[in-house]
Amino acid sequence: MPLHRFYYAQGLFSAQDKQEIAQRITKIYTDANLPAFYVNVVFIEVLEDSIFISGKPAPKFVRLVSQHLARTMDSNERKQAVLDKLEAAFGPYVKDRGLDWEIHIEEHERDLWRTQGINPPMPNTNAEKLWVKENKAIPFEE
Amino acid sequence: MPLHRFYYAQGLFSAQDKQEIAQRITKIYTDANLPAFYVNVVFIEVLEDSIFISGKPAPKFVRLVSQHLARTMDSNERKQAVLDKLEAAFGPYVKDRGLDWEIHIEEHERDLWRTQGINPPMPNTNAEKLWVKENKAIPFEE
Amino acid sequence: MPLHRFYYAQGLFSAQDKQEIAQRITKIYTDANLPAFYVNVVFIEVLEDSIFISGKPAPKFVRLVSQHLARTMDSNERKQAVLDKLEAAFGPYVKDRGLDWEIHIEEHERDLWRTQGINPPMPNTNAEKLWVKENKAIPFEE
Repeated sequence: MPLHRFYYAQGLFSAQDKQEIAQRITKIYTDANLPAFYVNVVFIEVLEDSIFISGKPAPKFVRLVSQHLARTMDSNERKQAVLDKLEAAFGPYVKDRGLDWEIHIEEHERDLWRTQGINPPMPNTNAEKLWVKENKAIPFEE
Repeated sequence: MPLHRFYYAQGLFSAQDKQEIAQRITKIYTDANLPAFYVNVVFIEVLEDSIFISGKPAPKFVRLVSQHLARTMDSNERKQAVLDKLEAAFGPYVKDRGLDWEIHIEEHERDLWRTQGINPPMPNTNAEKLWVKENKAIPFEE
Repeated sequence: MPLHRFYYAQGLFSAQDKQEIAQRITKIYTDANLPAFYVNVVFIEVLEDSIFISGKPAPKFVRLVSQHLARTMDSNERKQAVLDKLEAAFGPYVKDRGLDWEIHIEEHERDLWRTQGINPPMPNTNAEKLWVKENKAIPFEE
């Protein structure tokens, strides 16, 4: 559900960093009672000469694009809380290392979303709880 | 118009697979009387250590992000039908090989879209029919 | 703010081309009194066998996805003017070389956007003017 795409110049993160960032981001959503497997994290590494800020090469910059599908954030407090959590998840690998960063979250339509061929269950339904428990997509009756 | 971006660990698809998936996806739209050249398919291959589900490496996972611009889907039946068609297009290369997958479609604003410098014609106009026939962008009077 | 992702087969642009395209795109926004550092440009190069139009390999095709966060375009005239400017920025490297291209712009929600951990200031505020002048994110009182 949440799809997190990180863009940055190759070499900024080690394999271990990537693993840890993905785990820390995943925990945000499992703490909110979402299935762990909803969380996709993709690290898209580009050449050093292929990412720019201010029209200048940005070899120390990390840009995250996050997309949400399973939940909508219905207040600004909630939105800021989720941004806080995401920034805390990758902060030790980014801010604490002196890198620059930018993030935005998009919310897209859940009717246009499927995992393993199934439109995922609505929030807090028994079907969703089963998906959380089994951590996989299981056919269900609506 | 429809821009389809596939994200996955390098090595999952051969050049032949990619060609066939692109052809099969294109057919969905030409069957709906859209110009073939509207269909963009991009395969974004990342390192095996750069894609995660549930905070774990996901070397057998394919994530598709599809974006529509030329048409909007105005009923849930239509939305599900398009998802069905997309999943059928890549199914032989994904589901049938035991890979995992997830997809979502986004609809974006056609006024903010251009191909070859031209805002594409509205649905089912003579100009669009000419674009279908010639399979290229041709200037037209609105 | 504006995040510009270019997708194309590797080899189409030199390092110098990328630098110049990024500078020319950045100028669009600084001319509109936005901070230069809002402008992110990422060149995502794929294998020649990994990008398709009409179901056929498209080694001479450039696809730009632009995302806006700091401003919304409230008239069609404005939308077309921004598209004109973007196409003029990369035109010498794309149209003038006989490449094909397609572009769309998306507008996303500024409340879900942060740079360096800060929700950027509203348009034309004193804080934004300071960000322009210093070309960096500076904490401010709302």
